[in-house]
Parts: sequence; structure tokens; C-alpha cells
Amino acid sequence: MKTTTRTLSDIVNTVLAVPCVGVAIFATLLSGCTPAPAEQELPPSPVGISEVFGWQMVDLSHAYGRDTLYWPTYTEGFRVDTLAEGETAGGYFYAAKAFSTAEHGGTHLDAPSHFTEGGDDAASIPLDRLVLPGIVIDVSEAAAADPDYLVTVEDVQAWEREHGPVRAGSAVLIRTGWAARWPDALAYLGDDTAGESRNLHFPGIGASATRLLVEERRAGLLGIDTASIDYGQSRDFPAHRIGAAAGVPNLENLANLSGLPPTGFLLAALPMKIRGGTGAPVRVVALVP
Amino acid sequence: MKTTTRTLSDIVNTVLAVPCVGVAIFATLLSGCTPAPAEQELPPSPVGISEVFGWQMVDLSHAYGRDTLYWPTYTEGFRVDTLAEGETAGGYFYAAKAFSTAEHGGTHLDAPSHFTEGGDDAASIPLDRLVLPGIVIDVSEAAAADPDYLVTVEDVQAWEREHGPVRAGSAVLIRTGWAARWPDALAYLGDDTAGESRNLHFPGIGASATRLLVEERRAGLLGIDTASIDYGQSRDFPAHRIGAAAGVPNLENLANLSGLPPTGFLLAALPMKIRGGTGAPVRVVALVP
Repeated sequence: MKTTTRTLSDIVNTVLAVPCVGVAIFATLLSGCTPAPAEQELPPSPVGISEVFGWQMVDLSHAYGRDTLYWPTYTEGFRVDTLAEGETAGGYFYAAKAFSTAEHGGTHLDAPSHFTEGGDDAASIPLDRLVLPGIVIDVSEAAAADPDYLVTVEDVQAWEREHGPVRAGSAVLIRTGWAARWPDALAYLGDDTAGESRNLHFPGIGASATRLLVEERRAGLLGIDTASIDYGQSRDFPAHRIGAAAGVPNLENLANLSGLPPTGFLLAALPMKIRGGTGAPVRVVALVP
Repeated sequence: MKTTTRTLSDIVNTVLAVPCVGVAIFATLLSGCTPAPAEQELPPSPVGISEVFGWQMVDLSHAYGRDTLYWPTYTEGFRVDTLAEGETAGGYFYAAKAFSTAEHGGTHLDAPSHFTEGGDDAASIPLDRLVLPGIVIDVSEAAAADPDYLVTVEDVQAWEREHGPVRAGSAVLIRTGWAARWPDALAYLGDDTAGESRNLHFPGIGASATRLLVEERRAGLLGIDTASIDYGQSRDFPAHRIGAAAGVPNLENLANLSGLPPTGFLLAALPMKIRGGTGAPVRVVALVP
């Protein structure tokens, strides 16, 4: 390319000259590294990629069940209906259930359509916003001292001084330490009055920090280990609105962020594919090389 | 290690001596390859890993909606309740919904607890069975000629003659071509009589082939692009029972398998994390280097 304007592919080709070798080797590894089962002594169980690739996998989702926390205005909780359970006439065991839930409860994804009319729904978010490199900004110390803490521009800049600029297309996960309070509604939400959302207290992301991450750094995804990326006392939800307007989904009620490094992992946040969904339950797994 | 018995770690260390370099480079790539947003011309949108890593991502899930197909005995379908939608008093748009579904409908995962009492539930399946190398065995030609087609031992052996032995810990996905019939209940299931499951006709995996894949090759996961890994005319569900007894989950109603190579991709099949779930909606994405 001899133009003087750098295109995306130029940047990618230049910056990624070495890593692309990694991709090629990764491809080789996928097709040829796991032990073949024939003609050699076999391991006692299926060989998983955590053993084979040397990756750790960290599950960042809370489980759904009777104790799942919802926004206080949704009072029905996670409901299960057992359709079958036990030995059948054929002599074998069989069990099946059905369930009901709000889209926005438990560890879930907010689609842009949650706060922007016509935004991407849970089924149409580009996969590049769901499988992407991740970083963790840890504000748990400040949040422990102030349950109404809002992540600041300075928090982002402090992370960047240590690790370099937040890269476009990253998943930016905020660790407040609130996951340790799950599923105690009073401790986690600040109030456990059913139907009442005015007295909530938990940390979130401030509007200026959200603008920096979404509009300047162009993060692909935001996530937090509280019930909302806007703090409990928010009345106008600026973080949701800024992200949704830019097509950025959110992950809320994340677990286990303490198990992740500040950068250098791959995040897979795969929501249930609900056509028209303003959000969805999401299973989030980090692959840490 | 100086023992003569080869241990798992021996095998991994020996076989993966080269690929582990790939993992190291992959780690470098995760932390250092995406263009930093400062001090260079910026790409017009977040840089996704499909561009950066040269991976294609293929979505293997059908969307949930009014047309989602369920086992005929579950007649309620996918139900949505709109909780809010429109401009709020604060002047911004807000929308949220709730939904109800059977665990076993649409693109879903069967947990071992579906057919084995005390088997892993949807929340406790090891992550190594959900994020793993994948292969596709294509029997679409035979299935097109016989809607009651059962995958045979010979089908597996034919794949192995071309690509080598199915490796322990792989996701084995069966392509019958049935996804093209979705969501036409009559064409996809062979019968669209509500509440009636005796007249179904679609392909599945035979008992002998399931034993070969699960007990000998020790596949980590089985998947298929029909409503069940057991064919429509099955009365005793041997494929489900063999897999569940070995802790192997299933993926059913998969989409887009025609977009995958026969081997050499990474599968991420992340189910909703339902405690006690005998199955769950699952978002399945293949990463093809």
C-alpha cells in the first residue's frame, strides 16, 4: 500500500506482523496438538484445552436459581417449572424443566436496544463485541470506602499509566469487589425493599469515564460486578445511555473478576440469542493464556 | 520424568512442545497486538478480533422468538412479556422484557442430568467441555436420502481416514443439513402435530457411533443440527443415555455448520448457567483461525 493515509488493514498488518505468526501457530495447535487416542497410552479423561493449551478458564457468571438478584422492580425472581423428573416407563431416568426470568437479572447482558430505540438487540450484537480481548480496572479499594463510588477518568488514566492505552475493541471490566456480597440483596444493592429502587447504593461508572472509554478509547464492551454500570443512586443512567448510543453492550452482575489479570486475556461473553431482546442472560468465560 | 509409563503431562509436554510457543505468542498478541488509540490514525470503529487475529467467527445458534421450535410435547413456545418500552419521564428511551421457555428448545444444551440422575447440571459442566477444539462430520448426503438416517461407526471412520483419529476432548458436531429446514416444524421435525412426538422423522446419531465417540474416542461434547442427537423415531434415546452416563453434554438445533471446516476450529458453547438445569439455551460460536 503506497497511500500516505493509513487504513485499518495497514495498521493491522503493521502492528500485527509478529502476532499473526501466533495465529498461524494457534491454527496448527488447534488441528494437531491434542493427543490422538490411538497407539499411545491414554489420559484418564478427555483432554481439555485448559490442560492442553496451558490456559486457565475463569467463569465470570453467577448461577441462576432461587437466590438470583433482580432489579427491585422485578419481584418475580427466577422461576422454574419441573416438567419431568424420574424413571420413565422405558426404565431410564429423564428430567426436563422450563423457566421464566427477566432479561435483566443475574449475570446478564444489556443490549444497546435497552437504552437506544433501534439499537442492536441481544441477537444482533456483532460477535466482535462478544469475543474480544479484556482488561480489568480495579477500583475495589475506593468502592470499599464509598458504596456510591463512581469510576473516574483518573481511574482509567491510572490503569493506562501502568498498562498502556486502553485499546479499541477491548472489553473493559470494572472490579468494585461487590461480587463478594452476592446474593445478599441488602449488602449487594444497598436496599432489599421489594419494588423500591430509590434507595439503592452500589458503585458504578461515572459519565466522564464512560465517555472516555466509549467515545475516545472505543471500548467494545463494558462490564461490572454490580447490578448496573450506573451506580445505585443514578436517576438518569448516563453510562447506559452513552454506551447504548455507541452500540456498546454491558455485562452486569459479573463474578470472579478477582481471578483475572489486569490485561492479556480473551473474553467470551455469549448471551442467549433472543430476537428483539433488550438484554439476555449471559455466560461469561475468560481465557487466560 | 523417568518413569516408563507416560503420564498425561508427559504426553502434553511432548506433543505440545511446538504449539506451546504458539500459546506464548498468543499471549503476547492478546496484550500487545491491537492498535493503541493514541498517537496514530484511528480505525473508524472498534477493532474486533476477527480483523485483528484473522479469525472468522461463525454463530451456530438459531435466535429465540415466536418461531422457535420445541419438542412437540412442549406446546407453549417462547413467550415474551414487555415490561417497559418507550420514552421515560426523564426524556430518554428505555425498554426491558421478561421471557419464559423450556430448557430444551431452540439451540440448547443438554446437561448430563437430563438423562442421568445426579449428572452434571447446566451450571456445573466443566468449562473444558464448553470451550474446546471442534470437528464436523458431514452426513448430509446420506441424510437427504433418508430422514431416519443414523450416523454410523463407518461415518466416523471415514472422517478419521481423512483427518486422523478424533482426539480426546473434541466437540464432535454432526451436520445433517437439517438446519436449512428451520423453523418449518413439519419439514424439520417430520410432524407438526402439537403434543404428539410419535411421528417425528429426522436424523440422529446411532448407538454404536455414540459409543465409539464417547467411550473410545472420549469426545468432550456432541452436537447436531437436528432437534435431538437421537433420531426422530427413537423410543429409548440411547445416544442421550450413553453420553449422559459419561458426563458428555449435547448441543441440539445447531445452525450454520456448513460454514465450518471439518477440523481445526475452536468452539465456545456457553449455556445459560442454570443451577439444577437439565439443559439450557446456549450461544454457540466457532472461532475459525
